Amino acid sequence: MTEGANGGNPATTEPTKPGTVYLVGSGPGDPELLTVKAARLIDEADVVLHDKLPGPEILGRIPEAKREDVGKRAGGEWTPQEYTNRRLVELAEEGLAVVRLKGGDPFVFGRGGEEAEHLAAHGIPFEVVPGVTSAIAGPAVAGIPVTHRDHASSVSFVTGHEDPTKEESAVEWDALAATGGTIVVLMGVGKLPEYVAELRRAGLDGDVPAALVERATWPDMHVATGTLETIVDVRDSADISPPAITVIGEVAATRDRVIDFLMNASEEEGEE
Amino acid sequence: MTEGANGGNPATTEPTKPGTVYLVGSGPGDPELLTVKAARLIDEADVVLHDKLPGPEILGRIPEAKREDVGKRAGGEWTPQEYTNRRLVELAEEGLAVVRLKGGDPFVFGRGGEEAEHLAAHGIPFEVVPGVTSAIAGPAVAGIPVTHRDHASSVSFVTGHEDPTKEESAVEWDALAATGGTIVVLMGVGKLPEYVAELRRAGLDGDVPAALVERATWPDMHVATGTLETIVDVRDSADISPPAITVIGEVAATRDRVIDFLMNASEEEGEE
Ligand SMILES: C[S@@+](CC[C@H](N)C(=O)[O-])C[C@H]1O[C@@H](n2cnc3c(N)ncnc32)[C@H](O)[C@@H]1O
Ligand SMILES: C[S@@+](CC[C@H](N)C(=O)[O-])C[C@H]1O[C@@H](n2cnc3c(N)ncnc32)[C@H](O)[C@@H]1O
Repeated sequence: MTEGANGGNPATTEPTKPGTVYLVGSGPGDPELLTVKAARLIDEADVVLHDKLPGPEILGRIPEAKREDVGKRAGGEWTPQEYTNRRLVELAEEGLAVVRLKGGDPFVFGRGGEEAEHLAAHGIPFEVVPGVTSAIAGPAVAGIPVTHRDHASSVSFVTGHEDPTKEESAVEWDALAATGGTIVVLMGVGKLPEYVAELRRAGLDGDVPAALVERATWPDMHVATGTLETIVDVRDSADISPPAITVIGEVAATRDRVIDFLMNASEEEGEE
Repeated sequence: MTEGANGGNPATTEPTKPGTVYLVGSGPGDPELLTVKAARLIDEADVVLHDKLPGPEILGRIPEAKREDVGKRAGGEWTPQEYTNRRLVELAEEGLAVVRLKGGDPFVFGRGGEEAEHLAAHGIPFEVVPGVTSAIAGPAVAGIPVTHRDHASSVSFVTGHEDPTKEESAVEWDALAATGGTIVVLMGVGKLPEYVAELRRAGLDGDVPAALVERATWPDMHVATGTLETIVDVRDSADISPPAITVIGEVAATRDRVIDFLMNASEEEGEE
């Protein structure tokens, strides 16, 4: 616990100095992939607001007394972002040191940007503590480098959550295919058939390598590989579920060349 | 030091069991942004092969006796990748625990993929230890989220090192512009005018926000912001030099909205 938690004392005449909010990335799940700073801030925090994505190992090490789960509400519904925003301001205004712990990196599809803007608009000091994103670490621990001198001069991270058949979809699958680089899809298990079809239509070959990495660095990590042509079947037969990363591009074939000597690989499941 | 460093003893009849090579990301430079695992492996390693990118603070904490700089050779020339590859195998074959320390993440424009393949081809066990990439952390500590629900459904990391006017350039600036997402350029200080021109030709507006983040998280971090129209002049007047990250896209404007309450921001230099 840090000092300064002087909120809520009605006898105090001075207004409470707001605490700092730390927007902290937890990395993909292995507690050793926390940064030294994240580990320290979690220790020192008065309260840690989190959802489920940091994973059971990291969450399990945080004392219950200072954890607050904003991932789900009692009724099983998702907490609206507005609630989290409000709660961050509320706790900081009590003078508390608040860690907002997010899976991976807080600014990669984590709504960290929105939280930062909300805090600034309410005059709450904050700090961003970047983390190891699952978009890079997921492929990496499966033996897949997201860039490669010979195969990929760029890598794009994209959300697979939007329905690509909807007209208002903000994701330009055509353009992503045309980059010629690696495509890494987050939140992309459910709509895999839709965006694979978009990428095929955009001209990507059926034999472009693809991989799915579920629960990267968690004790029950699960990897499955195939091609654009086979990956939907691979997903189904290997029973891949969220959270998982989809990697599309020549780099996905690297796994086969290195797997025998890669110490942190998990077993392969699914089909080639 | 770890055990098992039994190489070089000619009296031993058993062949030396090769040591493990750890391909480790150092993060962008702040020693607290090392992962817990990276910090541990550096401590335990028999030898740490590195270049200059991990930065003075992290390198300064590694005992001289176990550091080996493969960034430059005596004559001031760059070490060829072949030398580094060979040296990694050589040290592992002596039974040593080897950390190959790379700036940021080892698999983001770090040639980690090539090193992994070389190690596997030579039967050397290795592990990949992902790090916090400067491509995300650089913008983040400057107050810029690389993705944003309202402004960016994708983010692309690309090398600015290739000459975009060369015909054989592998970077498709047109396609990157057409993604509508954030573009983050690494190794992109020198050729900034060339790829800015490519992006303008591809249809991006002159008023698209842009930022340069030099030495992110180093003690002498330096940030400068502008637009596609002004960013080349901004680079020159703010005297931005490598290593630096270029961020192009609506998200770059977030900095202005949060800077007053962002505790880990550096001072702004350059022009708006
Ligand atoms: C809301 S996004 C947040 C991403 C996170 N900020 C990051 O940088 O990793 C959630 C998605 O991240 C990916 N993800 C997060 N942790 C993962 C893990 N350990 N293994 C595989 N995918 C993961 C999945 O695609 C999941 O649907
Ligand atoms: C060969 S690439 C390696 C990138 C590294 N693997 C990573 O993930 O950050 C070198 C480029 O990384 C970027 N870079 C690395 N560290 C940086 C830092 N601390 N601040 C800004 N840019 C950095 C610069 O664009 C530099 O030219």
